[in-house]
Amino acid sequence: MFDVLGFIEQKRDGKFHTPEQLEDFVNGCMKGEVPDYQAAAWLMAVYFRGLSEGELLSFTKALADSGDKITFPKDIVVLDKHSTGGVGDKTTLIVLPIVASLGVPVAKLSGKGLGFTGGTIDKLSSIPGMNLQLSAKKFINQVMEIGCAISGHSEALAPAEGFFYSLRDVTGTVPSIPLIASSIVSKKLAGGASSFVFDVKFGKGSFMKGKEKSFQLADALVNLAKAFDKKALALLTNMNAPLGTWVGNSAEVQEALDVLRGEGPQDTRELCLSLAGAMLFIAGKVKSIEEGKAEAGRAISDGRALRQFERLVRAQKGTLDEGIISGSKKMPLAKNVKEIRSLEEGYVAECNALNIGLALRKLGGGRSRKGESIDLTVAVEILKKKGAFVNEGEPLARIYFNRTNLLEEATELVSSAFIVGHEKPSGELLVERVVE
Amino acid sequence: MFDVLGFIEQKRDGKFHTPEQLEDFVNGCMKGEVPDYQAAAWLMAVYFRGLSEGELLSFTKALADSGDKITFPKDIVVLDKHSTGGVGDKTTLIVLPIVASLGVPVAKLSGKGLGFTGGTIDKLSSIPGMNLQLSAKKFINQVMEIGCAISGHSEALAPAEGFFYSLRDVTGTVPSIPLIASSIVSKKLAGGASSFVFDVKFGKGSFMKGKEKSFQLADALVNLAKAFDKKALALLTNMNAPLGTWVGNSAEVQEALDVLRGEGPQDTRELCLSLAGAMLFIAGKVKSIEEGKAEAGRAISDGRALRQFERLVRAQKGTLDEGIISGSKKMPLAKNVKEIRSLEEGYVAECNALNIGLALRKLGGGRSRKGESIDLTVAVEILKKKGAFVNEGEPLARIYFNRTNLLEEATELVSSAFIVGHEKPSGELLVERVVE
Repeated sequence: MFDVLGFIEQKRDGKFHTPEQLEDFVNGCMKGEVPDYQAAAWLMAVYFRGLSEGELLSFTKALADSGDKITFPKDIVVLDKHSTGGVGDKTTLIVLPIVASLGVPVAKLSGKGLGFTGGTIDKLSSIPGMNLQLSAKKFINQVMEIGCAISGHSEALAPAEGFFYSLRDVTGTVPSIPLIASSIVSKKLAGGASSFVFDVKFGKGSFMKGKEKSFQLADALVNLAKAFDKKALALLTNMNAPLGTWVGNSAEVQEALDVLRGEGPQDTRELCLSLAGAMLFIAGKVKSIEEGKAEAGRAISDGRALRQFERLVRAQKGTLDEGIISGSKKMPLAKNVKEIRSLEEGYVAECNALNIGLALRKLGGGRSRKGESIDLTVAVEILKKKGAFVNEGEPLARIYFNRTNLLEEATELVSSAFIVGHEKPSGELLVERVVE
Repeated sequence: MFDVLGFIEQKRDGKFHTPEQLEDFVNGCMKGEVPDYQAAAWLMAVYFRGLSEGELLSFTKALADSGDKITFPKDIVVLDKHSTGGVGDKTTLIVLPIVASLGVPVAKLSGKGLGFTGGTIDKLSSIPGMNLQLSAKKFINQVMEIGCAISGHSEALAPAEGFFYSLRDVTGTVPSIPLIASSIVSKKLAGGASSFVFDVKFGKGSFMKGKEKSFQLADALVNLAKAFDKKALALLTNMNAPLGTWVGNSAEVQEALDVLRGEGPQDTRELCLSLAGAMLFIAGKVKSIEEGKAEAGRAISDGRALRQFERLVRAQKGTLDEGIISGSKKMPLAKNVKEIRSLEEGYVAECNALNIGLALRKLGGGRSRKGESIDLTVAVEILKKKGAFVNEGEPLARIYFNRTNLLEEATELVSSAFIVGHEKPSGELLVERVVE
């Protein structure tokens, strides 16, 4: 019989668990032999004491091994990309077709969209007909046939991760680097890819606000993946302001298509090229991230990436109007528009991503609780990015809304997201650091 | 709706709860609205972050107010005494009649006997017929009529304390000073006494091994009780070695009677006089603990204390043979005896209380789990206390046993409890410090 109390006390006192103990603990939780309150106490002890490298490896392995696993043929390199989540982060929609169009298979499993705004699966569900919950067989076959697939994470993969995630969510034990890293990497391991690029956000709109903490997380993710003999690399990226122009599910698909056509906002394009470059680099397709960026740029300019996006949508039964692909038509957007105007003349010193994310949620575009339905057509359009000059009375942003019950609060959030000052602010790096 | 998650995060991050939050939390737990896993996570966060003085007060109040309360008439001072528990600790059986015989009422509620050896209630249950679960009414009436009463703690008093105690027991959150202090003081508050003496043990056979931690607990108990406008005082007492000669339920009643007759081992007598002196002092009956000790000594030598013990037993329906009271007969003891002999000549340098306690439990004299029945007649008799000279082959201790299944382990424990050396060890203080 596994001694759970002794196990909790061990962690509480800063001692170390053996691999067998961690496996027994995870199995005990899954079989219902370890009650939730003991698992919760252990999670809080880990929040304070952390996990050693060895413990982290064993715990992650136990999570990854707790259910089904997707397996690709051994001889091909399959990539996956994971973002810790941000506001206006539509990079997956762009990066995935770019990389696949250059001959590197991407098998993207997307987790629960629990941020303020929808997740990648929510965004793609604004394309009519899209099948976003693929069977393992269909998922593997599609990656092998067209080079990429995207699916919501099946509950049969790493179910123990789901158990601990749900418990952490209600016990104040989410923001622990080893618990976050084991959660992310265990799911990725069960998803079958052999190389990972992590987009770890820092700043106001990110899950982990501090740059130092985000760096620690990036480091933990890369080291942990490598400990499982996977290739891994992380970009530490800036999420103080929303990425790009549009925040909102359908609207972000629109912006992704714009970028894939060689248009769209500069920051979104730039971050996507960096991520694609990093993916091509760890896949061994190019000799450096810079070379990968150039390749990715070519995949956009010659239309390959856009055609790959079409192929992806078709393979997953989605239907996109030809005009939307070509740019003559737009993705659906809520009909009512409200403009947020600047009260003074000056330079935009800040556009707080957290406020914009919270505003979108107020409009119905994100979830407060699991399972809530969301309005895909509401959006916030950022007209003036950081550093832009604005005249008094000139619009800073537009809100696209359907319901009016929380409109005032959303307006207030967007309005107070902007700080306008007299001096032109210095720029911020989009990609702060590469962690290998 | 009470935000439990925010409440846990607050403590996790080292912030402070308001009195209302703590009350809502305790009530939520009792109503089943706060799930056990959230309560467990909070307890572990408290283990690491502690509670401020204000939080400790509010939490204790919420526990104390969670059920029934015993109320004595306002104009009389009613005492209670609490020991954090040790091996051979039969002081309550002696101190209670001493103090009551000197005209100071003592209302003693005794908690679950969860140590290695039985609790006070177990010890007293070796007196045939004793009613040790008094109704509140009977308890109050008896204190008013004969000056003292002793009863197991009713579950209707401070039930929230019981809830948290049980949860702490299985989540590794027992050894937290604010959680221990709130647990003890909330029960004492619900028990209705107005003045408390705490016997806080330190050393090998105590719950809290370290002297410094025990001192912190003593300090916390006294301050907390005073914050509720109670009189309080703590003695920090040595529990490296068992108290007195006898460890075992029936045998400890025998030793208590011996001390009440003016006989018995010196250390038991000395500690009881100190505790009784402290109780008389905080009741305002004497001007100093020393003066109280002298009074207590007189209550023994003139037989008042022994008569009060008889009165207590009679009032609670117990029957004690006249010969046992007078000393011509002994309390029942297990018939089989095994002697532990010294392997060398020298001075007893140590008699480890923890070993002796564990040995008694192996013999069936203590509980491993709640509700287990115990054998009241098994015992360990310490023949050579610390500092005594022993010849090779001379007995150090005797084991009185009924069952033989764990006898070998018990023997090994008792045997290894003793360290015999060449030099006479320096003495240790029995009462290390008085905390007021």
